[in-house]
Amino acid sequence: MVVSPVVNTYPLSSYSFGTKEPKMEKDTSVADRLARMKLNYMKEGMRTSVEAILLVQEHNHPHILLLQIGNTFCKLPGGRLKPGENEVEGLKRKLSSKLAANSPNMQPNWQIGECVAVWWRPNFETIMYPYCPPHISKPKECKKLYVVHLSEREYFAVPKNLKLLAVPLFELYDNVQRYGPVISTIPQQLSRFQFNMISG
Amino acid sequence: MVVSPVVNTYPLSSYSFGTKEPKMEKDTSVADRLARMKLNYMKEGMRTSVEAILLVQEHNHPHILLLQIGNTFCKLPGGRLKPGENEVEGLKRKLSSKLAANSPNMQPNWQIGECVAVWWRPNFETIMYPYCPPHISKPKECKKLYVVHLSEREYFAVPKNLKLLAVPLFELYDNVQRYGPVISTIPQQLSRFQFNMISG
Repeated sequence: MVVSPVVNTYPLSSYSFGTKEPKMEKDTSVADRLARMKLNYMKEGMRTSVEAILLVQEHNHPHILLLQIGNTFCKLPGGRLKPGENEVEGLKRKLSSKLAANSPNMQPNWQIGECVAVWWRPNFETIMYPYCPPHISKPKECKKLYVVHLSEREYFAVPKNLKLLAVPLFELYDNVQRYGPVISTIPQQLSRFQFNMISG
Repeated sequence: MVVSPVVNTYPLSSYSFGTKEPKMEKDTSVADRLARMKLNYMKEGMRTSVEAILLVQEHNHPHILLLQIGNTFCKLPGGRLKPGENEVEGLKRKLSSKLAANSPNMQPNWQIGECVAVWWRPNFETIMYPYCPPHISKPKECKKLYVVHLSEREYFAVPKNLKLLAVPLFELYDNVQRYGPVISTIPQQLSRFQFNMISG
């Protein structure tokens, strides 16, 4: 038999949450964001970004932690790697910047697990694909999604301008309108995992 | 660094194709299919089915082999396991039944690889989900998709009532209307793989 990889998921209530100083978005519009991306590309080449799928459970169903900006836009915690930075180390750095208290001895135990999806941006545009399209020899961004295994108890410090939401898989599934193509297909990418739901 | 699993893909032209006797569908309508499913469930419990993602390349882009029935409906090769049957052995049996010549010494070398997706059918209905929905304690079917690694050269015998198509990932992506929810998200599920495109 083929063995499914296991993810232990703990109740949302076993985690505690506080706030910290705001982490403002670097860009105020999509056009600004794409212009900055182009500038960085000319200096550093293809952008590599890493994002985390952090899982908790409620009512025995897996939920994903998403950061909400304003009232509608949701994103996975993560961000852009520095040129040459190791993916796993870079993701830990980004997770601490987005979700950890400032004190170095209060960092969650980020256990970076499986890479579950890779998305490519062929042009300086918002559209991404889960493959590098044919005839694209110089993609502009490669974004990798990792499952991050959480310990049973952790303290998260959420920037004051963001909200941290636990969103059930059934809410993400088939909901590209609300969550976009990357986040709305996370349920499919996690389907091969076996969730070991640990109650509180 | 996290290492991506590798799939060697060979050109479509390195495979040869013939035909064999028709393999008719067991049911002539969706209603018949669901009725037979219900009957089998009462006898044998939850149905487990296994399907194969067979990859080839053309123009350096991965393509998936799909069986087309009539002019529109496409499916992955595979099928229902016998009660208690091993998944890997069952998938090999189904692949040979659908795609191999009848002679036992002409069987392709089916190398069953990674399970990339698991879909659940909560009720005797057509809709499936990439998770077992909350409050469903007795799902009716569990369908697992496996990557099957093909050798460089093989001979496939296609039942006369079916057509074997090599469909590029870019055609499947975001095309739920044509391919349905399971097949249209295969590009996302394969995105974490590194394709080693071997030319002819």
